[in-house]
Amino acid sequence: MNQLYSSKLLENVVNEFSKLPGIGRKTALRMALHLLKQDVESVKFFGNAVIKLRSEVMYCRECENLSDTELCEICSNPSRDHSIVCVVESIRDVMSIENTMQYQGVYHVLGGLISPMDGIGPTDLTIDSLERKIALGNVSEVILALSATMEGDTTNFYIYRKLKNDSVIFSTLARGLSVGDELEYADQVTLGRSIVNRMLFENTLKKN
Amino acid sequence: MNQLYSSKLLENVVNEFSKLPGIGRKTALRMALHLLKQDVESVKFFGNAVIKLRSEVMYCRECENLSDTELCEICSNPSRDHSIVCVVESIRDVMSIENTMQYQGVYHVLGGLISPMDGIGPTDLTIDSLERKIALGNVSEVILALSATMEGDTTNFYIYRKLKNDSVIFSTLARGLSVGDELEYADQVTLGRSIVNRMLFENTLKKN
Repeated sequence: MNQLYSSKLLENVVNEFSKLPGIGRKTALRMALHLLKQDVESVKFFGNAVIKLRSEVMYCRECENLSDTELCEICSNPSRDHSIVCVVESIRDVMSIENTMQYQGVYHVLGGLISPMDGIGPTDLTIDSLERKIALGNVSEVILALSATMEGDTTNFYIYRKLKNDSVIFSTLARGLSVGDELEYADQVTLGRSIVNRMLFENTLKKN
Repeated sequence: MNQLYSSKLLENVVNEFSKLPGIGRKTALRMALHLLKQDVESVKFFGNAVIKLRSEVMYCRECENLSDTELCEICSNPSRDHSIVCVVESIRDVMSIENTMQYQGVYHVLGGLISPMDGIGPTDLTIDSLERKIALGNVSEVILALSATMEGDTTNFYIYRKLKNDSVIFSTLARGLSVGDELEYADQVTLGRSIVNRMLFENTLKKN
């Protein structure tokens, strides 16, 4: 049912909030009334932060990651290994991998996965700029770190076929049991792969 | 775990969104990335709508309802019955009652309920201005439309004791079975009251 708002200003804010993913009109109203209880300065900061994000944020010219500067913090960091490029779908994946603190190379953000169902083809992704980066000859390894889905596998395979090159190693994320998984409940495909790709027990002792 | 953001602008927005009620950092990030995909103008509108709501909204001088003008749309509407005042807890309740399209009087927003547990006493509510409104002598009926909770009942009783007056009728919302309720699952107190306060069947035929 259409709510009747006593204030057009309130209605505008509720409309705007309810456009956000996962937010209905009731939650939007709750948010708007919450903001009304905050002081003027912090609400101003909220509004301006949103406006500035959209108008000032940039995409790194090297890796297409979200950045406040032309070259992102990772690409401009001289202590990172620029010869290893980790190919990911989105900036969320960059954050996830950075959070593991296990990776010291750089990234390349594709901006999506090949998905004919959704009308996304290779030209919609940043594969060309990845190709140019590899052509410069400074890359020794490309890690294909895409989701273990049909679209991820297709994109992995497309990139591999298009860019493979004798001087570059193409690797992908290890597949196997998750930490904490019980064997009984692991799915067949995962369990099968983790037997085929079993690793020396000695090697598991060295890490972490 | 603390996320590492590649952009301070993004981090600011995620921080701000996650201060909203019911929004965690993951949802906040999803919202921020959603806004990044919108065009600059609509994000500007979003931000400014929030800022304007907080800095420009007013409370109606008659009924304390949220309003864009000094006197709200309901209080300034000459076709509404200004002799009937419906006392509600918050502006959300005004919206709920307006949505029923069954009420043609005006409102008085208390701004809360008496709740010693939360440190809210009668002086924190707008009971004084309700008293002044009644003292002017133009009010014939006060409808106490507060929640059917302990706090609502306490506040109803306090207002009734303080403001009762021979020239004003005090009424309250009907209590009974909700539309669609099955007798089997109705709670005892509700069922008991709806037997004690049973109404002429004829009267139920006239309404709606």
